[in-house]
Amino acid sequence: MELGSNFELDISSLHNTKSHIFRYLESYHTYYMDSGRSALAVLNQVLASGIILLPSYICESVVKVYRENFSIVFYKIKRDFTVDTEDLDSKLSEGVTAVYLMHYFGQLQDEMFLNWLNKKRRQYEFVIIEDTTHSIFTKRRTIGDYCVCSLRKWFPISDGGVLYSENEQMDIPFADISAKNPSAVLEAMILKKLYLEGKADGNELYRKIFTEEEEKLDKQGEIYRISELSRSLLKYFSIDDLKEKRRENYRMLRNALQECGMELALEGKQMVPLACPVYLNGREEFRQYLAEHRVYCAVHWPLAGTGLEDHKDAKEMSEQILSLPIDQRYGAEHIQYLAELIRDYVKIRR
Amino acid sequence: MELGSNFELDISSLHNTKSHIFRYLESYHTYYMDSGRSALAVLNQVLASGIILLPSYICESVVKVYRENFSIVFYKIKRDFTVDTEDLDSKLSEGVTAVYLMHYFGQLQDEMFLNWLNKKRRQYEFVIIEDTTHSIFTKRRTIGDYCVCSLRKWFPISDGGVLYSENEQMDIPFADISAKNPSAVLEAMILKKLYLEGKADGNELYRKIFTEEEEKLDKQGEIYRISELSRSLLKYFSIDDLKEKRRENYRMLRNALQECGMELALEGKQMVPLACPVYLNGREEFRQYLAEHRVYCAVHWPLAGTGLEDHKDAKEMSEQILSLPIDQRYGAEHIQYLAELIRDYVKIRR
Repeated sequence: MELGSNFELDISSLHNTKSHIFRYLESYHTYYMDSGRSALAVLNQVLASGIILLPSYICESVVKVYRENFSIVFYKIKRDFTVDTEDLDSKLSEGVTAVYLMHYFGQLQDEMFLNWLNKKRRQYEFVIIEDTTHSIFTKRRTIGDYCVCSLRKWFPISDGGVLYSENEQMDIPFADISAKNPSAVLEAMILKKLYLEGKADGNELYRKIFTEEEEKLDKQGEIYRISELSRSLLKYFSIDDLKEKRRENYRMLRNALQECGMELALEGKQMVPLACPVYLNGREEFRQYLAEHRVYCAVHWPLAGTGLEDHKDAKEMSEQILSLPIDQRYGAEHIQYLAELIRDYVKIRR
Repeated sequence: MELGSNFELDISSLHNTKSHIFRYLESYHTYYMDSGRSALAVLNQVLASGIILLPSYICESVVKVYRENFSIVFYKIKRDFTVDTEDLDSKLSEGVTAVYLMHYFGQLQDEMFLNWLNKKRRQYEFVIIEDTTHSIFTKRRTIGDYCVCSLRKWFPISDGGVLYSENEQMDIPFADISAKNPSAVLEAMILKKLYLEGKADGNELYRKIFTEEEEKLDKQGEIYRISELSRSLLKYFSIDDLKEKRRENYRMLRNALQECGMELALEGKQMVPLACPVYLNGREEFRQYLAEHRVYCAVHWPLAGTGLEDHKDAKEMSEQILSLPIDQRYGAEHIQYLAELIRDYVKIRR
């Protein structure tokens, strides 16, 4: 059994569904782009520059988008991934034109904070950019003027992100933007599926493709619309199924983790989780152990390049966190396998 | 080197194009279906039953479509794939409600015949079903009331056919028809490409998938619309490129064949060819020889199941014909390889 890392894709299991992302976001003005980064970059074209308040726990690719046109100021995110309201308040000023709001791993920022931020928006006239990359399936939007989600984190597609808004049509010259060409990632996803099924030998080829294509994306300077191919694939993925499976997987894994005495990074009730993050000392050793048993976990996020490298709290979180896979590919047998591995690990270490 | 048989698909070579099939047929009323058979079957719903005149050289899957609702009468196709007008004339009657017109391998039926058939249509009030599966890229339509093309013969897609017409919207309950789900053929096409590039071992898996999926299609009773996935792929294939490559490949191969004294089944000027058909005695031996050198050729068509099994002319054509691959996958080096093989074969046999 193998869990985590890049999505595999089983073409012959694709079925028409009415519960796809286009339906899910149909009441919004949407701009489907090749990535969350492109969605943010295209939004930049309609934002007034000034000071942007970014959360002090964030992916490097987000920081990069704002470096050119904005003065970046970080506001504090607590260990439980809620916003430190006092800290944010202290950083508000007339010069702030945008506040970047993130709901981590699917857990929404609480109602009281959102109401408070809403009021502050009226006072200071900033826009709220809501990053729903982790939370889109918990709730499409809370209070964002603009919402942005990287769809590649949720589905086996080679490219895909979306900018959406309840406001009137945004003034984005969308027709001038080319659609992304399909990439070899689709090949890699199919090869991975055949490999996992024991039908293809070796994982070197698809791993090489995944790595190469990720590097290409990191270096990509242009903004693209989503590829036609990814657009068509997105029509096959059922949001209803995804929600149910992720919730159930998370619930099972949480129970197992609690029995082991592992520290869950968030409570995770009433959310559709992106992953199941845990905190622990000796994270690298644990990650290595899981990888040896073919469970590949991401770290959300390494701090390199964010400007948060010396930020004490962010550093501690980044060093201790690990995202365990609970996505829609998996069912009870996978979660049991993972839970068993973790139980063994905890036993040995005690 | 390997030529012919099912298409391989190179995802990372796909590029956006403005010269795709949807643009090519944009001035028609179009119904994109999962196959040519489904396109014919859906057309059946708007045709008056009666006598249908079918050409005496035709694919079994076409005959099958008309067996239930029509009395089938065959009219003669000559060895050069032109219609025997006299024979067709002798079969026209008040009871004829449809005439099936086919242009073989890309070569249009001649102007004089088409004018004659046009007049007869006015006299007898039959409809003309124009099968453009071989000829769509030579000319979209000549005189058909309805045109039907199997797109799977031209492009690396798992499903695709189209019914199109210049007439007003057809009364087809299109919204009630489900889209086909994607099939493993896409996996097979990708695997084949990796195999041909030497990146994947073995061809058993993809050959097995191709065979299984073709059998499924043969047994399929339902009518489907084209899958979303094939629809998106079709947007990447340039008709302009396809035309140029096929014409050039055909030209090169024809020259080589003529030098060898092989009998070309048609002259093939001013057409965009589906394949390069030759006639020869001992076809099976030749086919075998080519297969041993990894050139896989189709026979258009075996007669089994058509009702033409005892038709002398059709039998001779079907036994002697072989379709050599000249499609857009190939360039000069492939055609030279094929020409060389054929030269060697002719030398040995003399």
